[in-house]
This record gives sequence, structure tokens and C-alpha cells, in this order.
Amino acid sequence: MLEKHAGLYTDFYEFTMCQAFYLSGKGDLPATFDYFFRENPFGGGYVLFAGLEDLLKVLEAFRFDDEDIRFLKEKGLDRKFLDYLKSFRFQGDVLSVREGEVVFPLETVLRVEGSIIETQIIETVLLNILNFESLIATKASRIRGVAGDRRVVDFGLRRAQGYGGVHASKAAVIGGFDATSNVYAAFQFGLELTGTQAHSWIQSFESELAAFRKFAEIYPDRCVLLVDTYNTLKSGLPNAITVAKEMEARGQRLAGVRLDSGDLAYLSRKARLMLDKAGLSYVKIIASNQLDEYVIRSLLEQDAPIDAFGVGTKLVTGQSSAALDGVYKLSMCGHRPRLKFSENFAKITLPGRKRVFRYLGRDGMFYGDAIVLDDEDRLDWMYHPLFPENRSPVGRMNFEPIMETVMNRGKARRAWTIGESADYARTRLATLAPEHKRFENPHVYKVGISHKLMELRSELIESMHKTFSGGGKG
Amino acid sequence: MLEKHAGLYTDFYEFTMCQAFYLSGKGDLPATFDYFFRENPFGGGYVLFAGLEDLLKVLEAFRFDDEDIRFLKEKGLDRKFLDYLKSFRFQGDVLSVREGEVVFPLETVLRVEGSIIETQIIETVLLNILNFESLIATKASRIRGVAGDRRVVDFGLRRAQGYGGVHASKAAVIGGFDATSNVYAAFQFGLELTGTQAHSWIQSFESELAAFRKFAEIYPDRCVLLVDTYNTLKSGLPNAITVAKEMEARGQRLAGVRLDSGDLAYLSRKARLMLDKAGLSYVKIIASNQLDEYVIRSLLEQDAPIDAFGVGTKLVTGQSSAALDGVYKLSMCGHRPRLKFSENFAKITLPGRKRVFRYLGRDGMFYGDAIVLDDEDRLDWMYHPLFPENRSPVGRMNFEPIMETVMNRGKARRAWTIGESADYARTRLATLAPEHKRFENPHVYKVGISHKLMELRSELIESMHKTFSGGGKG
Repeated sequence: MLEKHAGLYTDFYEFTMCQAFYLSGKGDLPATFDYFFRENPFGGGYVLFAGLEDLLKVLEAFRFDDEDIRFLKEKGLDRKFLDYLKSFRFQGDVLSVREGEVVFPLETVLRVEGSIIETQIIETVLLNILNFESLIATKASRIRGVAGDRRVVDFGLRRAQGYGGVHASKAAVIGGFDATSNVYAAFQFGLELTGTQAHSWIQSFESELAAFRKFAEIYPDRCVLLVDTYNTLKSGLPNAITVAKEMEARGQRLAGVRLDSGDLAYLSRKARLMLDKAGLSYVKIIASNQLDEYVIRSLLEQDAPIDAFGVGTKLVTGQSSAALDGVYKLSMCGHRPRLKFSENFAKITLPGRKRVFRYLGRDGMFYGDAIVLDDEDRLDWMYHPLFPENRSPVGRMNFEPIMETVMNRGKARRAWTIGESADYARTRLATLAPEHKRFENPHVYKVGISHKLMELRSELIESMHKTFSGGGKG
Repeated sequence: MLEKHAGLYTDFYEFTMCQAFYLSGKGDLPATFDYFFRENPFGGGYVLFAGLEDLLKVLEAFRFDDEDIRFLKEKGLDRKFLDYLKSFRFQGDVLSVREGEVVFPLETVLRVEGSIIETQIIETVLLNILNFESLIATKASRIRGVAGDRRVVDFGLRRAQGYGGVHASKAAVIGGFDATSNVYAAFQFGLELTGTQAHSWIQSFESELAAFRKFAEIYPDRCVLLVDTYNTLKSGLPNAITVAKEMEARGQRLAGVRLDSGDLAYLSRKARLMLDKAGLSYVKIIASNQLDEYVIRSLLEQDAPIDAFGVGTKLVTGQSSAALDGVYKLSMCGHRPRLKFSENFAKITLPGRKRVFRYLGRDGMFYGDAIVLDDEDRLDWMYHPLFPENRSPVGRMNFEPIMETVMNRGKARRAWTIGESADYARTRLATLAPEHKRFENPHVYKVGISHKLMELRSELIESMHKTFSGGGKG
């Protein structure tokens, strides 16, 4: 959707800063930025990373046409800098975990290297895409987790946050959803489309039965009837059964009924009984209306005989966490490691060029991740980033580096399809122990740092402390 | 942003239904849909309506090009219906309150009239735009309300829900924000842009002082320095004061300092003292970091000397309500009033062609709104929609119809600028009593219905009840 004007999808301070870098002759300074987040959303134990493919596409399309330049000129940018922007292309490198990877707080998920201008100017669009898609993919994976093999479908576009709905639908599929009602997203990303009827279809007929009959006549192969327009048990289901029997007489089968209000456990049980009694055990029951992972879990705990769930608002808006708190921080500049201080010790950033190793336990499940410096090939120990005495032996464990180069001098290396990313997400989630996936107080996954990284940070902190001589609030 | 493929920005069931209307020869049936919502977001007492101009633009652009048609063909739509879609234009009428109007639960905010196909097919995009922009304009108006005359600026793009960020920034301005950091939104909608520097600017220099000096040199007229990269009180502010005094010596003035972490009340008071003591009382203090209306209220209750607020995530994602629950319900079809039943009596819809009168109290403030049928010119009483015995005399009160025709046979009547809508919002909010704007348990604004509408609904309900003979769950 950002084929044009991609370069404008950013905060104005990126231009203010980049112009200042340019005018002060620092534009070519080499820089490294890290993307990471500090807190898992939804009170959960992990994030499912998504948005990489969209980010790479935007980076390749990131440029300024004449209209953009005119606009930026009006906003007071310098003529020489605008000339530079005219031919600007992102030519940096991106090292990243794969789309569909499970990732954890504080670890480097993706890093960008290039000149300070090109790495700085893409900050906002990078954060916007990765934060949102990862949030929704994570939410979707939680819903998929409780739904088991049942079909889960995204119905959220009408309550999505504007055009964000398009990427929400895609991220939902990476997180394990089967299909979407969102036509634009299906068109853009090749997702499976689904959708039958609304209450207005039924209301537009003189009777519910007439509305059902007409729909079955037009869509004999994929007829799902919405049974709650007037009265689910007294009208909707009896009428659906009548139509299903008429279809049977024509050698057709009613595909399903949809419950969209009321107590879905009670109604689905009643519906199943009524359908089975009428010999319609093949008719599926689809439920929708304010669903999320908690409601679905509770319905299934009560053995609600529901075959498929339509999930809307709470999926596409990522309730109850409206945003992933991902940040993009400078870790190298001019070949020197950098960090940002803070009142809060836990918020001090990790300096240097880093990547992440993932260690596997004897059970084959993920044991923990270590953030290491680029020149480190193996570790004996990984250290807790805040409490170095709290160290774990990893010397004999199997491990894999989980980041790889996905963009080289501005060219995306290869693209994974959404299906591949969804498959990858499934296998990675399967290798994450259930206690990290628990909704309530999940077990905190181990993320450590190498001894070398710990020392580098300590040195930098110490030299900073000398500069400010002493403690105190602020 | 939806110049192309606007017709695809919808749920697939709109196509399924519209094709069924078309194939069953009902496509030209006249229909009326109402847009309304059931609950105020944020536990508040009102909604600030926004999104109308974007909706009208999308309705005028709503069509299907060859690529769209090919895609829909792949999805199994009928050839005859696709031929119809090729030349489809929305040619209906839209009656609506103005953008910037304050509106309340259950009342008709906007209504669409036309053929059943054209009124149905636009449902999803209509809901998507109006729900989201109204949510954010409402949130923004709450923040503006507590900030008083202080400057409030949107910094949210990096955590916005994908491309939804563009419309969030616009809706924020309608709700009372002064400016945005979002370049794309400023480009699209002519908003005031703002933005200075991030921590990375400071980190990229060997010292904070050098970073501040260079920035002041390049932007002497609008230099705002971010003072919390290393240590706000011991480093950031002293360095900013040094640079401000150097600027004074050159006949320049430092515009401001920005606090982005720590306790903003404590730090802003300290900063003000330090700046004033240095003779820099003109230097403004800007605060950002996880702000919303509650934090700002609390800071100002503690007399924090903050001149401007940068508000991000919680604004553009509409926390803690991720969505406005607006719906689009059929109220007329084939010249007959329609309603949708529900288990929950309060969720029965209002039938018929309706508009809204707003009554004014003797103090000139809004007293209450009445939903009336189109042929009603004045009322003596308005009735509570659920408790008819609970009626209010309005016969002698001044009132105004608050809906007007904004689109006629597919042509938008006139466009209001964003500035005009923001001005309108301000005057309307000023006419809404403070008790309706309170954050905690706001006084419920009166929304009534006319006697005639009450009777029409009762008749329809009764005739439905006869059909289902008797009560019971479900």
C-alpha cells in the first residue's frame, strides 16, 4: 500500500536529524541500530516476530519523488539535503531472525547497518511495521494455541485501526489463522478468503426461512446460515434445519450454521443436539462475537461443540496490549560501540554489533538465548544481563545462530512466502515449552549475554559514570 | 491511500451477499442503513465523530478495475455479477452529523440510502473508517481537555497499528491536537509538522555537549534539545544551559528542552528552576513518554511546569479502548421498516428512516438528543428508548436537527477542511456540560426517541413475537 511516498511514512525528526548529519558532514558515518522490545505483550511469555517481508519491501521502495521533495521543501528542509534525498536509496544491510521466529525481551531481533543517515531515516517505518505485525501474529498464535485443530478465521476489518487492518489479517495468518474475511489483504497477500452472510441479508426478506432458502439456492456448495437474527433456538435453527433437509432432498449439504450472539456454549450444545436429531451431524457450527483466546478456552473447557471460530476486534487490534513496545537503538557509530543510559538500570541498552544464539535442551526444546558479539563463535556460560552472578552453563549444549542476513547493500536476499513463515512459526512454537506459552504468569524464558558483551557494557557504563561523577536522582 | 482497489477494502461476505441480491433479482431494492454505536469508549460520556470526509472520498473512489475483477473471478464470483461490478459506482445518499460533532450511544450518527447492493457493499469500509477515526478524535479531545492551552503534539506513528497511523494523526487534529510528527499524514492532510532529535543524534557524538552545539548551530530558530540520554539533571540540562547561553551570545534563543523519561513532575520542576536561574525563562519544557489524559492531568495537578506534551502510543491506538463498537444496521428495506432482534432487549435496533434533534437547555448547553422519524418536525416529549414511562418534556425547548445531507446520489455535497472540523469540534465540546466530559462515571447524556418511533418499534416487535410464539432463552 505504500508503493508511492514510502519515504514520507516517518517522523519528521528523522529528517531534521538526517539533514543535520548531512550538513555537518557526518552523513557517511557507519552506524548500527538494533530492533528489540522490552516486554512481552498480553502478559505472555514470548513474541512471534512478523513484518520482515513487508519491511524489506518498504526499504526497497524507500525513495522520494518530485512531489515528496516539493513537500519537504515547503517544510523548510535545506536545498542541498533535498538534492541528496532525490537520489536516496537504502543501501544498508539487515540481519534478522526469520518471520515466524519466537523471540524474547531484550534480545536483538533485527539489526540494521549502513550510513548513519540511511539507518536513521528508516526508523519510524521499521518500528511501525515490526511492532504491529509482531503484536498481531503473537495474538493470533495464542488463539490458534487454544483452538487446537479447529478452524480460526479473522473477521476483524470493520473494527481494525484504519488501514492497519490489512497487515493485521496477514500477520494473523503467520500466527496460525486459516483464513480472513478481508478481501484487500487476500488480494495483496494471497490469503484464503471466507465470508457468507450478515443479518441484513435475512432482514431484507419477508421471512428468515425465505432468506435461508434463497441463499442455499445460490450457494449450494458453501452455504453457512446465520441463525441469530430473530431467535436462535425458536426460529434460526428450525429454519436452518428445514433448509438443510430441503438441500438433502436435492442431493446437497448445508455447510454450517453461525452463532453470533448469546451464550455460545449453551447455544452450540443446543444447536448440536437439534442438528444431530435431524440427522444433520455433518453440519458445522461456527461461532463469532467478541471472541479471544480466553473466551475460546473457556468455551472449549465447557465442551462447546464448536467447529470454527470467527475472531474480530480483539485479534486485529491486539487487545489488551494495543502495541508492542519495540524500540530501535543505536549500538555502534563510527566503529565505536554506543549505549543509552537511563534512570532505570534495566533500560540501559546493549552496545556493539550483536547476534543471538539459541540453545537447545536435551529434550530438544528451546533452553535459552544468548546475545553475543559478532566475533564470538561459542560460549561456555551465558550471564543474566542484570545479575552477572546468575549464570547458566551452555558450553556443551547444542545451539544455532538465529539471525541471518536478509538484506545486503539494499537488496533483499530472498523472500519467504506467508505460508512458509506460518509453517516456520508452527514448528518454532512447537519447540517452545508449554510453560512459556501459559497465559497466566508464564515461566520467563532465559535470555543471557556473553561475558564479553557484559564486559563491554560495564566498561562503557564506567566511563560514563566518570563523566557525571556520582549518583543522585535524575 | 486507497486510491486504487478501494472496492476491495471490505469483507468477503459483502460480495457473497451482494451477488446473491443481484442473482435473485433483488439488487435494486431500496434500503436504508444506520451507523451508530452502543457504548462510549474509555468509560467516557461522549464520542467525537470523525472520518466523514475520508469516507466520502472512498465512496466516490469505490470501484473495481480489471485487476480487481480478475481477482474476484478467481474467488468464484459469478460472471454476470462481475460485469455489474465493472461499472459499479456508489450512487446513494448519505445523511450525517458533521465531522467534529459530539454524539452519543444508540443515536443514528449517519445513514446511507440507496439500492440494497450499493448500501451493503460499502459496509466494511464505512465501519473501518468511522470507528477508528472517531475513536482517536475522542481520545485526542480528552487529552486536549486536560492540557488546556498547552501545546499537544502527536508522536505516535512508530507504535501505531500499521498504516492506521496516518488517519490517527489526522483524527487527533480534529480532536484538538496542534501538530504531528507524522510526515505522511501532514503531506496527505496538510497538518502542522513537528520534530527535532532522538537519542541517537546525541549518541552519535563523542559528547552530549558537542551534539547539542551542532544541533543549535544548524537549527538556531527552532532548537529543542533532548536532555535525558545520559543524565537529565547532571548532564542534559547543564549542557543545554551552556548551549543556550552560547546562543544568547549570538543573539539566538534556545526554543526548548525535552524530557523523555523519569518522573516528569520532579524533573520539570528542577529543569524550570535551573533554566530560570540561568536567566532562560523563555526556554520551554516539552515532556513525552507514555503520556495520556490521566498522566497529564496528574502532572498538572502537581503544577508540573510543562509547556507542551508529546503523546504517542496511547493516543494513536486509542488505549484503553482499542475500538469503537460502531455498527451498520438495516433499518428500511423495500420501503418497509426493519429491525434486528436479539436475546438482549437493549440491542434491538431502531427501525425506519430516522434523524436526530438536539435540544438546548436554558443555559445554552446541550440538554439531550431525540431520535425521530423523518416526517416529524417537532416533539412535545422524548421517551427513554427502553423505559417509555421515563419521558422528558422538550416541547418548549430550542432544538436543531444535527444531521444533514452530505452526499447526494453519489456526489459529496461539500468538503469541510480539517481546520473547520477541529473548530467545530471545539465549539461543540464547549457546549457539552463538564459532567458529561468527566473521566470517572460521567453523567449519562439523555438520548430519547419520539413517541411515533417508539410505537413503530413496538408494533414490529409484537408482530415478531407472534411469529415465534412465546419467550424462553435463546
